[in-house]
Amino acid sequence: MEVSDPFDWLERAAQERAEAGLTRRVRPRPPDDGLLDLAGNDYLGLARHPAVVRAAADAATRWGAGATGSRLVTGDTTLHGELERELASYYGTESALVFSSGYAANLGMVTGLAGGGTHLACDRHNHASLIDATRLAKANGASAALFGHADLTSAQDALASSGAMTRRLVVSDTVFSVDGDLTDVAGLSRISRRHRAGLLLDDAHGLGVIGPGGQGALTAAGLRGASDIVVSVTLSKALGAQGGAVLGPHRVIRHLVDTARTFIFDTGLAPAPAAGALAALTLLRAEPQRAERVRGIAHTLASALGEQGLRVSAPRAAVVSVLAPSPDDAVAWAGRCRHAGVRVGCFRPPSVPDGRPRLRLTARADLTDADVDRVVDVLAGTRPVPVGTR
Amino acid sequence: MEVSDPFDWLERAAQERAEAGLTRRVRPRPPDDGLLDLAGNDYLGLARHPAVVRAAADAATRWGAGATGSRLVTGDTTLHGELERELASYYGTESALVFSSGYAANLGMVTGLAGGGTHLACDRHNHASLIDATRLAKANGASAALFGHADLTSAQDALASSGAMTRRLVVSDTVFSVDGDLTDVAGLSRISRRHRAGLLLDDAHGLGVIGPGGQGALTAAGLRGASDIVVSVTLSKALGAQGGAVLGPHRVIRHLVDTARTFIFDTGLAPAPAAGALAALTLLRAEPQRAERVRGIAHTLASALGEQGLRVSAPRAAVVSVLAPSPDDAVAWAGRCRHAGVRVGCFRPPSVPDGRPRLRLTARADLTDADVDRVVDVLAGTRPVPVGTR
Ligand SMILES: Cc1ncc(COP(=O)(O)O)c(C=O)c1O
Ligand SMILES: Cc1ncc(COP(=O)(O)O)c(C=O)c1O
Repeated sequence: MEVSDPFDWLERAAQERAEAGLTRRVRPRPPDDGLLDLAGNDYLGLARHPAVVRAAADAATRWGAGATGSRLVTGDTTLHGELERELASYYGTESALVFSSGYAANLGMVTGLAGGGTHLACDRHNHASLIDATRLAKANGASAALFGHADLTSAQDALASSGAMTRRLVVSDTVFSVDGDLTDVAGLSRISRRHRAGLLLDDAHGLGVIGPGGQGALTAAGLRGASDIVVSVTLSKALGAQGGAVLGPHRVIRHLVDTARTFIFDTGLAPAPAAGALAALTLLRAEPQRAERVRGIAHTLASALGEQGLRVSAPRAAVVSVLAPSPDDAVAWAGRCRHAGVRVGCFRPPSVPDGRPRLRLTARADLTDADVDRVVDVLAGTRPVPVGTR
Repeated sequence: MEVSDPFDWLERAAQERAEAGLTRRVRPRPPDDGLLDLAGNDYLGLARHPAVVRAAADAATRWGAGATGSRLVTGDTTLHGELERELASYYGTESALVFSSGYAANLGMVTGLAGGGTHLACDRHNHASLIDATRLAKANGASAALFGHADLTSAQDALASSGAMTRRLVVSDTVFSVDGDLTDVAGLSRISRRHRAGLLLDDAHGLGVIGPGGQGALTAAGLRGASDIVVSVTLSKALGAQGGAVLGPHRVIRHLVDTARTFIFDTGLAPAPAAGALAALTLLRAEPQRAERVRGIAHTLASALGEQGLRVSAPRAAVVSVLAPSPDDAVAWAGRCRHAGVRVGCFRPPSVPDGRPRLRLTARADLTDADVDRVVDVLAGTRPVPVGTR
């Protein structure tokens, strides 16, 4: 039977994306491609650290390749428990709950804590996973208002618009992933308290980078252990593995065990990445200067690029963002860098909240001074030629 | 400063769950607790197969503990590409896209393919991840109607209610996870074609179990390679690892690369589980009788339990479900089984779509006849005493 295909519309959609220069491509890399990597989120350089890799491999051998079920059925191992205790202890919360990804942790944190009758005030530039989480909370009867990016006055207004809702939550990234800029966590907490709102923070790019020894945004803001703040982190960036976690008071974590759908209805995190993250955390505890080092490198990199006349963000964490004139320029520039041996990230709409295309560079604690010099030379030497002079 | 805590409401919520008998607990297990496991989803018994474990451990060593970024930035490796080619080839689709979990794959599949102007007809018992995906699609301008569980007439009505929507999708699990019952895939496809609707199927419990050699629900229904059907699978059940994938025509997969938020904004699957799943798939290809064996064991188990007078579902895949009189009875029964050395799943509201508490047993291809006999003895010997005779 000849049927008219219900997916024919995809051809036109693909055409439109191509015309807008928004076609994306996966780019499989071999284990070692010789490029100097400034695109990944392995901030502390631990993803391939011998102790981390050994822990991951041993865990696969000892526990198997997968957790075999939801953590409420068969997927909970003593390894998950140990990882949770270590995360909570390092971050300074009573308790922690590990999810299969940072994305899942954010969905679970927000939907588990925001039911009907909850009003959410959300930073306009929040990560996609927090945005999806907010959409799900709304489907469940919550209301939500966006506030201007990192704008405390606007956040206050968004909170005040809670209408008949009886519970309030403020939801924000701590370090925004594209530019690496920070929100004012202490300020957000003050506003939240004024409105008796809980504060939910995504510290995916803060753990291992921000605060003394990379203890994260709460410690940095003097709010370690606050009973009215809940934080999500990911195990896939500074901890070099995969997975995510929600950190907070016991009662919050117990509530999520009972209610967070991405916890209950998802297979537990595989043993190998769980053990890898745990080993990375142990290394960070032993060598807390890694966090200071990555921030220092980001600073050096940004100043040197700025001296070359490039438009660079002031780095507050590990991310250095360099503006490009157009999406096509950004793609071509990143391609020239790769050609010259340096891998950088290339962010274009709709992945950038403000519509401005840029290269995204990430500092790593294990970059040498010579690496940094080389990156600056390559970036400056391959910069787009201004339109007027082409 | 003494602040009134915005999370005080959690105490009352915990109290209410406790009174309703709905408090959940994680139960960390050691690597080997000596229990005979009939609760996990490691249907083919491959999670700890030496070849699978070795592949996972080697991948951690070779590639690192994590993928280090989104697959659109640094997280795409030749390992992911190979896994995708093998999945597509075994399942019989043009293309495949690997996500960090089956949950993420479902969110990406549905939201990527259902935009504004799309009407979704969804089985009422769909998995939580498909339900969340549908909620997200609605937030994005889609409409949705639920149809009666596995009820083709009701599905037809749900499709016909599409109103002004110009695109239509039917969304269903193939094997429902709680009872292991099947939907009529061929029937759903006929109805979908009649309404020019695309068909989105979650074959999480079908891959490795259903169809010749466990090739899944499409092959079983004679629809292998259909251009109007898209399928999600998970790597965390029959393939014993972690992760998920969407399988379908090239143009569908290309569309998801460009649009699926849980693909774009999520760190790539860690190398160890990716390699573990690939090794499991290679084993299944070499020994396709594993799939027939797990179905046979489920049958034997269900008949024998039925002969003991227990109320057992007729297994169509690897899941055998045994009704319990009450949620408390279910918990106590599972506890007595564990005490007697057999781990079974215990499903209570709200994790059961129909409100009926039950034990959930899963067959595994590596169970021996003696194992099966033992399970039957333990289940029958520990059954709840009927209320009248207590
Ligand atoms: C701010 C932020 N939150 C959450 C996530 C999701 O974490 P994961 O990739 O571990 O799922 C990411 C990145 O991927 C992120 O940048
Ligand atoms: C039907 C179904 N779909 C999707 C999932 C999610 O898969 P994963 O656990 O790999 O995220 C599950 C179970 O966990 C499931 O039972």
